[in-house]
Amino acid sequence: MREAPLVFLLTDFGIRDPYVAQMKAVILSHAPKAHIVDYTHHVRPFDIVQAGFFLWSGFAYFPQGSVIVAVVDPGVGTTRRIVLVAYHNRIIIAPDNGLTGLLLPEDGRGVRVFAAHVDQAATSRTFHGRDVFAPLAARVINGERLETLGEEIPPASLERSTWADSGRQGNRIWTHVLHVDGFGNCLLGLCINQWEGVLGKVRVLKGHPWGEGVIPVATYNDLQPGQTGILAGSQGVYELCMCQSSAARALHLKPGNRVELEVIS
Amino acid sequence: MREAPLVFLLTDFGIRDPYVAQMKAVILSHAPKAHIVDYTHHVRPFDIVQAGFFLWSGFAYFPQGSVIVAVVDPGVGTTRRIVLVAYHNRIIIAPDNGLTGLLLPEDGRGVRVFAAHVDQAATSRTFHGRDVFAPLAARVINGERLETLGEEIPPASLERSTWADSGRQGNRIWTHVLHVDGFGNCLLGLCINQWEGVLGKVRVLKGHPWGEGVIPVATYNDLQPGQTGILAGSQGVYELCMCQSSAARALHLKPGNRVELEVIS
Amino acid sequence: MREAPLVFLLTDFGIRDPYVAQMKAVILSHAPKAHIVDYTHHVRPFDIVQAGFFLWSGFAYFPQGSVIVAVVDPGVGTTRRIVLVAYHNRIIIAPDNGLTGLLLPEDGRGVRVFAAHVDQAATSRTFHGRDVFAPLAARVINGERLETLGEEIPPASLERSTWADSGRQGNRIWTHVLHVDGFGNCLLGLCINQWEGVLGKVRVLKGHPWGEGVIPVATYNDLQPGQTGILAGSQGVYELCMCQSSAARALHLKPGNRVELEVIS
Repeated sequence: MREAPLVFLLTDFGIRDPYVAQMKAVILSHAPKAHIVDYTHHVRPFDIVQAGFFLWSGFAYFPQGSVIVAVVDPGVGTTRRIVLVAYHNRIIIAPDNGLTGLLLPEDGRGVRVFAAHVDQAATSRTFHGRDVFAPLAARVINGERLETLGEEIPPASLERSTWADSGRQGNRIWTHVLHVDGFGNCLLGLCINQWEGVLGKVRVLKGHPWGEGVIPVATYNDLQPGQTGILAGSQGVYELCMCQSSAARALHLKPGNRVELEVIS
Repeated sequence: MREAPLVFLLTDFGIRDPYVAQMKAVILSHAPKAHIVDYTHHVRPFDIVQAGFFLWSGFAYFPQGSVIVAVVDPGVGTTRRIVLVAYHNRIIIAPDNGLTGLLLPEDGRGVRVFAAHVDQAATSRTFHGRDVFAPLAARVINGERLETLGEEIPPASLERSTWADSGRQGNRIWTHVLHVDGFGNCLLGLCINQWEGVLGKVRVLKGHPWGEGVIPVATYNDLQPGQTGILAGSQGVYELCMCQSSAARALHLKPGNRVELEVIS
Repeated sequence: MREAPLVFLLTDFGIRDPYVAQMKAVILSHAPKAHIVDYTHHVRPFDIVQAGFFLWSGFAYFPQGSVIVAVVDPGVGTTRRIVLVAYHNRIIIAPDNGLTGLLLPEDGRGVRVFAAHVDQAATSRTFHGRDVFAPLAARVINGERLETLGEEIPPASLERSTWADSGRQGNRIWTHVLHVDGFGNCLLGLCINQWEGVLGKVRVLKGHPWGEGVIPVATYNDLQPGQTGILAGSQGVYELCMCQSSAARALHLKPGNRVELEVIS
């Protein structure tokens, strides 16, 4: 145990409500030395794909030994399981709803999963983040063994999730906007590792008013004002971008929108 | 004194400004071991009722020994007092404007209140959060006795505050929306403890375009898409809600709006 | 070295993205005892003047020994330098783009500046906040000497920046809105220290629909509902304000808008 175990919180609670703070208060009641960091609380409500993307894109940066509590939980109040996932010397606590699907290898190598023993007496007065996830996180932080906190289950039994619908047919690639960041960059569901060979080539986008004007660039500053670029971004996926301007606003794109690319061979 | 005394900040400052951070900087200048947690900074500007509700709903979750600094202060710059309130082994620092009214028992049992000795030489350049509340909080965190920081006054001399206007006449219950949370749930000024016997029964809402369709439920997932429910929520009050959708948007409700319920006997 | 060196983060990243959290994760990976405080992440995208203003207005409140990491960086991806600035027993890490211009004395007295040794192999996958600034901050926090982290350069070689365009001609003073805070107060580019003699006198504002009705006040509560005041505010500049109401909304002012005052002698 390090002196101040790091806990990253990833939720769709926002911060206008005291919900996140109540989770923190409970964690700190039971694990006073926890060092809590907000990963983000601005996942779109109930958007498991976006939450899974954030978990995937940030995972390598969480220090070894970190605990990640991810509560994006449209199934709250149903019988969905809560799982404890040990992977690469970090522990994730999350509802079993596909949130970890992008991160974990399909063959389950290096993954151990435990279905948490959870009090089923929850009522509508139960705020699961505060009353279920936070006490569980505190026990993990305090060094309790996962074996005592849940029943081990095969990684293959986890709910599956994939990248937001995307694929290729001939010279067409289609995908969706996963996330629009604060600068208006549109992060696409195209993982760099998977698409690098293809998207390294010149390409155009079809079926949009912005027509053919998308330029592959190496940095935002390679673009002139008004130009739209596509680059391999810092979050591990391709992004549509402009220089010091919002591509989302210029292109009228929002999370969930479909985007088509045409590969020029 | 625990090693890292917990300090919860509750303000209407938002986080787009550096105001909260300047408070933290001053607290940490004087009390370097303080462990500061944002409760929320998104109280509606000057909304004492909402701030008092948040203080009430979260109080039991603050660890014993916590200090809560609540700065929602429409009277800043007037002669309003600043009070230090000891209650259930926690200390609240707040302007004396009714903010603690929901939390504290009317008979003052278990409550001690001190009117803080405050420098009255404040000018327009004084940011009370940073220049008055933060140094006071640091002294409390550092273990100074409340007796040295202020003059004890009777709890009954505190400004009063009550739940946002609500009540019952015959089979009609009327109340107001206290808060709309990030999911669009409408938290009503109906404390569960007080209204449980009444609202446990079937009921309808009158005088709204959404007519009679409000269903008492035990969990959000008991609702079909489009249905509106009412449930005893995790913040201690009744909520109007929908399943994975915003009740506030569907019902055109905002904080402060009046809501009427009809009890079916 | 204090036990938990304080690090203040000032960026235009917002908090809806996991960018800030990834910076924190990297800092804490390399400097586990760092105590990180968000100064603000809501600088308007690429607004160096606003960021420089926030740095200036808060600087005196950062405890001695603090490290301030300021990443508002329109030139990211170009050859702009990253500088380490030692001033008044605090260290600022920032791009060399004028961000420190308001804070540092023109003659460079008491200032030492180092151009950081930075890996120039950055690609579009590099997130400079996370991959360049955060590791550099960790090394500073861990007590590495600035001499080993960069090459000393003359303070006079830093990019310059001044207050947003403002000045006086006869009895006219013109300036711009630097910032609109969460209460709707309009912070002007008029430093109190510089303008105090002038603006202490009665004045009117010209060329606006709100005409002549601006009242110099000592506190927000000196104003009646609907009245607009001007006061010497807590952030070191003059502010246009109203009592418990948004001056920005009433006067239709936004950051960057030009404002004219007329001095009455």
